[in-house]
Amino acid sequence: MPLLGLLPWRAWAALLSQLLRPPCASCTGAVRCQSQVAEAVLTSQLKAHQEKPNFIIKIPKGTRDLSPQHMVVREKILDLVISCFKRHGAKGMDTPAFELKEILTEKYGEDSGLMYDLKDQGGELLSLRYDLTVPFARYLAMNKVKKMKRYHVGKVWRRESPTIVQGRYREFCQCDFDIAGQFDPMIPDAECLKIMCEILSGLQLGDFLIKVNDRRIVDGMFAACGVPESKFRAICSSIDKLDKMAWKDVRHEMVAKKGLAPEVADRIGDYVQCHGGVSLVEQMFQDPRLSQNKQALEGLGDLKLLFEYLTLFGIAEKISFDLSLARGLDYYTGVIYEAVLLQTPTQAGEEPLNVGSVAAGGRYDGLVGMFDPKGHKVPCVGLSIGVERIFYIVDGFLMILFVLIFGTTKGEKVRTTETQVFVATPQKNFLQERLKLITELWDAGIKAEMLYKNNPKLLTQLHYCESTGIPLVVIIGEQELKEGVIKIRSVASREEVAIKRENLVAEIQNRLSES
Amino acid sequence: MPLLGLLPWRAWAALLSQLLRPPCASCTGAVRCQSQVAEAVLTSQLKAHQEKPNFIIKIPKGTRDLSPQHMVVREKILDLVISCFKRHGAKGMDTPAFELKEILTEKYGEDSGLMYDLKDQGGELLSLRYDLTVPFARYLAMNKVKKMKRYHVGKVWRRESPTIVQGRYREFCQCDFDIAGQFDPMIPDAECLKIMCEILSGLQLGDFLIKVNDRRIVDGMFAACGVPESKFRAICSSIDKLDKMAWKDVRHEMVAKKGLAPEVADRIGDYVQCHGGVSLVEQMFQDPRLSQNKQALEGLGDLKLLFEYLTLFGIAEKISFDLSLARGLDYYTGVIYEAVLLQTPTQAGEEPLNVGSVAAGGRYDGLVGMFDPKGHKVPCVGLSIGVERIFYIVDGFLMILFVLIFGTTKGEKVRTTETQVFVATPQKNFLQERLKLITELWDAGIKAEMLYKNNPKLLTQLHYCESTGIPLVVIIGEQELKEGVIKIRSVASREEVAIKRENLVAEIQNRLSES
Repeated sequence: MPLLGLLPWRAWAALLSQLLRPPCASCTGAVRCQSQVAEAVLTSQLKAHQEKPNFIIKIPKGTRDLSPQHMVVREKILDLVISCFKRHGAKGMDTPAFELKEILTEKYGEDSGLMYDLKDQGGELLSLRYDLTVPFARYLAMNKVKKMKRYHVGKVWRRESPTIVQGRYREFCQCDFDIAGQFDPMIPDAECLKIMCEILSGLQLGDFLIKVNDRRIVDGMFAACGVPESKFRAICSSIDKLDKMAWKDVRHEMVAKKGLAPEVADRIGDYVQCHGGVSLVEQMFQDPRLSQNKQALEGLGDLKLLFEYLTLFGIAEKISFDLSLARGLDYYTGVIYEAVLLQTPTQAGEEPLNVGSVAAGGRYDGLVGMFDPKGHKVPCVGLSIGVERIFYIVDGFLMILFVLIFGTTKGEKVRTTETQVFVATPQKNFLQERLKLITELWDAGIKAEMLYKNNPKLLTQLHYCESTGIPLVVIIGEQELKEGVIKIRSVASREEVAIKRENLVAEIQNRLSES
Repeated sequence: MPLLGLLPWRAWAALLSQLLRPPCASCTGAVRCQSQVAEAVLTSQLKAHQEKPNFIIKIPKGTRDLSPQHMVVREKILDLVISCFKRHGAKGMDTPAFELKEILTEKYGEDSGLMYDLKDQGGELLSLRYDLTVPFARYLAMNKVKKMKRYHVGKVWRRESPTIVQGRYREFCQCDFDIAGQFDPMIPDAECLKIMCEILSGLQLGDFLIKVNDRRIVDGMFAACGVPESKFRAICSSIDKLDKMAWKDVRHEMVAKKGLAPEVADRIGDYVQCHGGVSLVEQMFQDPRLSQNKQALEGLGDLKLLFEYLTLFGIAEKISFDLSLARGLDYYTGVIYEAVLLQTPTQAGEEPLNVGSVAAGGRYDGLVGMFDPKGHKVPCVGLSIGVERIFYIVDGFLMILFVLIFGTTKGEKVRTTETQVFVATPQKNFLQERLKLITELWDAGIKAEMLYKNNPKLLTQLHYCESTGIPLVVIIGEQELKEGVIKIRSVASREEVAIKRENLVAEIQNRLSES
């Protein structure tokens, strides 16, 4: 499934996905509902609408519908992601869309204000889940599970300022894989990175890089630079913005808004420019400031071991130790990572397609213990695939592909149904025969359609097959009925053959298995 | 996939699914969080917890987690349902979990109060979707789609008093299939009933019946009995409760709470006892009161045509014209239907397992027009499969099956992973070799696991395979490494053979394709 190939398609994608998006009134703004329908059965509801002449038909800010075309692309991406998770031995799981608000509080640092709360309608105070990690930790603690490798695909909700053009929504789908349990160091962590590589390679999104760091190195760096411990998480949140903001703006935030001394900020500035392979790990072991910090040394030791395993997995060249990586969420305690797609140099005037990180994760050894009455810990490490952003990229690309390869030539489209056979008739008053015939096909497990008309024209029926990509037509008319035969027509070649009625299902199954 | 067989398993199911449910602390009530963990990195969060000594770890009322065992069953059910929808030519679609509150208001009759509203955090007023039908109608109107056959699988939320023991939750999954568009009468309606039959037969839930009526017959019956038009929908809601309440209680509600004259209620009482096949349709054409009502006659005419098509589809004997069927939702305008599992006579002292309707739907020709600025209508008919209730039944049954067939004999369990190969070693210091080996397998698309330990014992590794059902083990040790071979072991037969290292992937693929 080569979903994406070589470049300069990114700028194209941005443009074309705008041009080609399915018709959507939500973009065009207000639509007034004047309710001209007036049936007795609907009276009461209609009255309500007539009383609201400014009633606007739209979807909530930052959300979107997935059209059948979108769904085809999404299904392909999810299939690839889930089959990778299963290849690594993960079990499936699901949790409710909302949790008690208390469960989610104080887990997300500065972003906690972006949670969607439910209205107090009497009863518990609830919030929509903000990620799949905290519900997983709650599940482990609640059920006293000490060891588990699971995946979870589901929607999460965040009240972010939506910048929809770059694939960020307020409702989006995450695909998470996590390993919970006490194991020898860095083996599960390395597997998480291997999984990220397999998925990003599999989706053929072009070249990518996974930035790696460790929360203990981040904190050690802060301590070594003179950041007061009480400001660790706040400064961490600022550093996390380095992929979207320039250093000078991040520095300004740390100094002016968060009260960091300018010389401390500048020391941090020296470190966050560093990135490299395992040699940078060795170099940091010798760093005069970091080498004095016990936490940082632990982190560096683990990263060294991690790189050893990554080499055995054959993915070391995809990984970059990057001291600017901090990750915003509060719960990380060890190794952290984030995958980015590598931009190609765009031509003059082309807007680079910036989708930010497409996958991320890390180790969170303290989260489960926060939910356990006795504080018993279950160490965890995991990753999250940002399907929405990948979807945005792949979707943009697929649309170009259809235009370039099919659209401009034969009018062929992406199929949104899987129908194999169409039941047609050239005659009037053949509805009964069509219904009997299609029942036979359905009952044999064959995907079949017909038009919901008593007397459709043959041409209309054949056009339907061509426009929806149905490969086979079975035709029944007076003559066929008399002779006990059915005509099978190939839509592509327009060839027709008559076969015995009783052989119909077998013959179709035969043809479908050949194609 | 014979998920369910013959009976008296229902009473068993209720009992056993209680006994066998995975450990779940939510049932045991309050758990105090005393937070004995105290790491620097977690200080801020922990403080928050220490300040809440009564913090309770549980999930929201009326919701549940799906464990890996549950997910295996759910996936089987959804696969069967979705493949049926695709067999009938439906496209996939998705909409956001919440809609503007105004979109959902006035669509659900008396049940509208059960909607989950989101808190007003500035911006739009939102509610969680209550079904998948209203979002579908909103989608059609917003995108000016006049014709579409789509399916939609997704969660919906209703603040009902949860009676979890009968498979009713506040968060549950629906599988909807709908046909939108102007077609010749009753052909799409008949297909919806055919789909319900295919799914319920496919799931092998035991014998079932689909009750059918028409909103125009219901309204005609009300008019003929002397119900004032303003009370139609309210009385409809009362009638809808007949599957859960006795007639005398429903009558009391209509008379005492809704102000219906007792003699009118009694006239309705005579009708709602009637159910039967197409002969009852003929009989009602002759009914002195109904035959005077234009609406009722239209409904009866359509039902007659419907039965003709159902006979051609070979499912007429599964369908019962039932005058007690009303359906609570406001938006239905034509034929309505509801599938129920037929109870077997339970033995004395056994509680019958009442799961209510497992699938339902009907025609709603006015809903899309309510969202269209000019009131343009798009006639629709559809159905919804209540996966949660089916899940409850199948789940209960599967658990019995495992106990009876596997549990008591060989300790075999339902597999929650799909891992095909386990990478093991009998020697110390073989982590590197195991990592290289498993990389080869993963990169060849083989589902593989190993233990995350530097020096695991061979017995521990083999036990892991037996307890998780992994069929093959590949073993590498010093001797194998020296000779350039790998041992392959079948977990079931315990047979081992040595093969050349370079043939490993091919040999495993060969074995997996045979099994």
